[in-house]
Amino acid sequence: MATNIKKIAVLTSGGDSPGMNAAIRSVVRTCAFLDVECVAIYRGYDGMIEGDFVPMNARSVNNIINKGGTILKSARCEEFRTPEGRKLAYDQLIAEGIGGFVVIGGDGSFRGATTFNEEFDFPVIGIPGTIDNDIFGTRYTLGFDTALNTVVDAIDKIRDTASSHNRLFFIEVMGRDVGHIALNAGVAAGAEEILIPEENLGLERLLDSLKRSKKSGKSSSIVVVAEGDKIGKNVFELKEYVEEHLPIYDVRVSVLGHMQRGGAPTAFDRVLASRMGVKAVEALLEGKTNLMVGIMDSKIVLTPITEALRGHTKIDKELIRVSDIMTT
Amino acid sequence: MATNIKKIAVLTSGGDSPGMNAAIRSVVRTCAFLDVECVAIYRGYDGMIEGDFVPMNARSVNNIINKGGTILKSARCEEFRTPEGRKLAYDQLIAEGIGGFVVIGGDGSFRGATTFNEEFDFPVIGIPGTIDNDIFGTRYTLGFDTALNTVVDAIDKIRDTASSHNRLFFIEVMGRDVGHIALNAGVAAGAEEILIPEENLGLERLLDSLKRSKKSGKSSSIVVVAEGDKIGKNVFELKEYVEEHLPIYDVRVSVLGHMQRGGAPTAFDRVLASRMGVKAVEALLEGKTNLMVGIMDSKIVLTPITEALRGHTKIDKELIRVSDIMTT
Amino acid sequence: MATNIKKIAVLTSGGDSPGMNAAIRSVVRTCAFLDVECVAIYRGYDGMIEGDFVPMNARSVNNIINKGGTILKSARCEEFRTPEGRKLAYDQLIAEGIGGFVVIGGDGSFRGATTFNEEFDFPVIGIPGTIDNDIFGTRYTLGFDTALNTVVDAIDKIRDTASSHNRLFFIEVMGRDVGHIALNAGVAAGAEEILIPEENLGLERLLDSLKRSKKSGKSSSIVVVAEGDKIGKNVFELKEYVEEHLPIYDVRVSVLGHMQRGGAPTAFDRVLASRMGVKAVEALLEGKTNLMVGIMDSKIVLTPITEALRGHTKIDKELIRVSDIMTT
Amino acid sequence: MATNIKKIAVLTSGGDSPGMNAAIRSVVRTCAFLDVECVAIYRGYDGMIEGDFVPMNARSVNNIINKGGTILKSARCEEFRTPEGRKLAYDQLIAEGIGGFVVIGGDGSFRGATTFNEEFDFPVIGIPGTIDNDIFGTRYTLGFDTALNTVVDAIDKIRDTASSHNRLFFIEVMGRDVGHIALNAGVAAGAEEILIPEENLGLERLLDSLKRSKKSGKSSSIVVVAEGDKIGKNVFELKEYVEEHLPIYDVRVSVLGHMQRGGAPTAFDRVLASRMGVKAVEALLEGKTNLMVGIMDSKIVLTPITEALRGHTKIDKELIRVSDIMTT
Repeated sequence: MATNIKKIAVLTSGGDSPGMNAAIRSVVRTCAFLDVECVAIYRGYDGMIEGDFVPMNARSVNNIINKGGTILKSARCEEFRTPEGRKLAYDQLIAEGIGGFVVIGGDGSFRGATTFNEEFDFPVIGIPGTIDNDIFGTRYTLGFDTALNTVVDAIDKIRDTASSHNRLFFIEVMGRDVGHIALNAGVAAGAEEILIPEENLGLERLLDSLKRSKKSGKSSSIVVVAEGDKIGKNVFELKEYVEEHLPIYDVRVSVLGHMQRGGAPTAFDRVLASRMGVKAVEALLEGKTNLMVGIMDSKIVLTPITEALRGHTKIDKELIRVSDIMTT
Repeated sequence: MATNIKKIAVLTSGGDSPGMNAAIRSVVRTCAFLDVECVAIYRGYDGMIEGDFVPMNARSVNNIINKGGTILKSARCEEFRTPEGRKLAYDQLIAEGIGGFVVIGGDGSFRGATTFNEEFDFPVIGIPGTIDNDIFGTRYTLGFDTALNTVVDAIDKIRDTASSHNRLFFIEVMGRDVGHIALNAGVAAGAEEILIPEENLGLERLLDSLKRSKKSGKSSSIVVVAEGDKIGKNVFELKEYVEEHLPIYDVRVSVLGHMQRGGAPTAFDRVLASRMGVKAVEALLEGKTNLMVGIMDSKIVLTPITEALRGHTKIDKELIRVSDIMTT
Repeated sequence: MATNIKKIAVLTSGGDSPGMNAAIRSVVRTCAFLDVECVAIYRGYDGMIEGDFVPMNARSVNNIINKGGTILKSARCEEFRTPEGRKLAYDQLIAEGIGGFVVIGGDGSFRGATTFNEEFDFPVIGIPGTIDNDIFGTRYTLGFDTALNTVVDAIDKIRDTASSHNRLFFIEVMGRDVGHIALNAGVAAGAEEILIPEENLGLERLLDSLKRSKKSGKSSSIVVVAEGDKIGKNVFELKEYVEEHLPIYDVRVSVLGHMQRGGAPTAFDRVLASRMGVKAVEALLEGKTNLMVGIMDSKIVLTPITEALRGHTKIDKELIRVSDIMTT
Repeated sequence: MATNIKKIAVLTSGGDSPGMNAAIRSVVRTCAFLDVECVAIYRGYDGMIEGDFVPMNARSVNNIINKGGTILKSARCEEFRTPEGRKLAYDQLIAEGIGGFVVIGGDGSFRGATTFNEEFDFPVIGIPGTIDNDIFGTRYTLGFDTALNTVVDAIDKIRDTASSHNRLFFIEVMGRDVGHIALNAGVAAGAEEILIPEENLGLERLLDSLKRSKKSGKSSSIVVVAEGDKIGKNVFELKEYVEEHLPIYDVRVSVLGHMQRGGAPTAFDRVLASRMGVKAVEALLEGKTNLMVGIMDSKIVLTPITEALRGHTKIDKELIRVSDIMTT
């Protein structure tokens, strides 16, 4: 080992996502395996500032791999955005003898971590836990696969009733800045149209597509809409617009909402979390810092957090084309 | 057999519910078993008026018992509410040689059926297919059990994320006139409070209950709200109200919406549908008419449709008490 | 209150079933609501004999309503079958100041409870927790509905692959003495034949039925077999027999096994558990004893445990008839 | 377009897997989009030999994306292994005017396809549809992700009951030659030990590991065993062995069996199938042949079928290490 880190802390921060518990478990067990002490920090950076630390051993994380949410709680912390807040946090970590921490969260959490690292030269490693799949440097974020399946299950159910009544549904899914959930769920659920933040197809094309779908004899139409779609209308406004301009449809709306964040993680997310947790601890012990664990080309890799924060992963053009073909 | 009915028709009408396909299958297979012809009517009473009939045999309903929605489509039909519309429907049935029909639907569909029966002395039997469980004369309607499980699964998921962030959620579930889904799902999902159309607990009590829940150390609060709750506020207004009067909570809202109507039916709904379909066909062949099939005290029974239309099944006082105790 | 019971104990015993945790939660919360102390006994009667008691309050049972298994662990206890073992248990209960206990389990557990009650005049109430639904005095046992849905989901999956290959499957489900799971799951999953302990249809009829099914053009055949079927052959022997006597089929076997005991309880089982727990505590506090809580005609009722032990609930003849008709 | 293929055929062959219907749908819709005729071949190569062809249009594949199994049926075909059988098949394809086919299946199906291609210079493209994930040239086969989740769900359920009784379970999962399902499911379900065909850890190590697990205070133990494990004992023999050599455990066995092949495909498998189907048709139209579509580094790629048949994808050493660490 390249460092003399004796104790590692783990926390979850920001919006929760399925697989966070599996990642916590992996960090804790890897510490146990490598004979390093492990401490859990509750309630994200709030808990760090307040010294809400609990020692963990391999048994502390029994039976959590399949649980949604995070046993460590999570929060967005205003105080950690101030130098004073971060100083308090640093003092707590030092007092506890912690030599590095693993933070599981999204870009907001990583911004805090990298600033903290730069200010105090304190070792930090990030694990991307967010359902949005919008973090640069990893093909998949923790929770994306689970959220996708939750969305697809819900749309399958809505399809049943849509087909029975020849209805058109606008279904809003999460994704303020990126359309990964919308695009993948739309393809997987056989949506007739998909509206994402990355593209503005225009309302004309939407009406054309819906007309074509109706004419082709489809018994129902599903339009999946990302929260942040660029068409400039939310699902309720889209309903009104279509009812006015294309009165052949009985239109309904569904906003899937927070259920997308919960639920038992899929096999994929559990395996990914387990792999990422191992890598995070190993990286700290090898003296690495200010890095995010990711998966690229099916391999677990490390990317500078500053790099990860530079932008969002792009929507796959090929998948947009597949989507266009499937809605023939 | 007490009648000379040679051909029976089956249709679904009104809002769809899980288990309708299992009931269709049962009607068709029972006809086949008893050597009576069977005809499917598509798109509810609309299809009856237009003569949209398709002959069915035992194989026509292979592999549908586990499908949500209705393969026969469903609709609310304005024309059937007029004497002229019903006369057209009658002529179509007679022309096709149909001696009686089974209608699977809710109270709107039954109202049409009983009027039709009275006008033309035409044999009709109803099967209560609606997720609301609001039909007099049956302990359970088809689809209620499935919808309940869909709601509870969704709330379980929301609970994961609510617990991770110590949040309060108002979750709207279906039930305009009755609170069966809200009350049962609320108890099953461990909701802290349940607002139903049958009771007005008042906003004061809601605030008290939420305060108590917070004080007792609960990590999250879930309030299940039926669409038709009597408290006079929808979930969005409730959020505002609580944020204003009880600013200790981070409040979120979720409207579960149409996914509650779809999905593969539960074992209970499939068995219930199978039993109801047999009884419906047997009743017609025994010369009975204007009756609804129901389940009471675990037995399949018949109730006059006029009786079934008289009111909604009451909320179980004992279950309200259980709910109060559980939220201690 | 008719008694001066100040402290109530709760334990789970025998084979576990989904809904046990929901029942534990209900007992604990009802005690809290009625201001009676509550104590959990771990590992069934073993824990009673060893005094493995843990005080419970309303918060001890947070977030367990949706968990399979039992947080109190369960076991079959040989020692409790002896007078010496029971005396040790009695002494422990008295030493702890416990005035009565609620045991959640099956008939083995009830036999112990009723003997104990008779020997020491100690108040006991039983809650029927077993997936087999074989307890006299209740229409449904806790866990039956969940197990049924688990079985039906599994058969739905097997049907997919059976249909793709025109195969015949023998699927073994739980039920040594009674065929409730087999019969209900068979009807719900559209099985072509169902073999239960209560009936011996004979191998001839099975072959006839399979021949008929093949001839009618079905693309696959599913035969659901209860562990304790009376036909005298297990699923592996049935496979051999059919392959020898009816070589038109490609035959496979599946034994569903212990997964039937686990999983998150259904909405039905959670509500039932909540209602039963309330009734159990109330009964003890009203001075009642040696009774089992059950549900009959949708009402929560009490039956003498001695009565409950007298036999198994009968298979519903009407449902057997429905099954016969559905396999037309 | 580089070819003058006017009509493309699609078939499924060998063991079925979830996602096959989504792939069929994609092939059919891509043909429609690119204005090429499409024909379905029923029952694999059997149907090719018998000319069991059905023309498909975009609507023929409505509402199948979420269905398990294959609507085209599948089979292993002896006759296609003979030159005579393949000649018959060729004549049928030519008579129908088919210019190339897409076969969805495993290595057996690909062997047939490549031989056929070499004999008749007939354009063929393969899509890897098998739950085993054992095909060279693709990181994921169609159905693997779904099967994995099915296995993990089942183990989660078994864990519930195992924990309640402090039991040890040996759970057999599919995988005769490769341990991908066992290893991934084992990690995802938190198994204490995983036995795969690629490694022989020896019975000594198994006993040691079980002893350690017991000592560490785990409340249950799950050992996941691939069908083709190299330890030389099946799950029943393992049970006997452990009961004899380590009598501290109450040991049970579960064979998950054919349910692993069925069920609605996951979002991942549906998206993968959609992408692969597009690529397969495009490849044929570009004049490519004797290739298999795969996914490598998240990109859809083509590999010579002869290459794909050369071996199995290797187990990930890093994942074995993760597994070892997690079972600390």
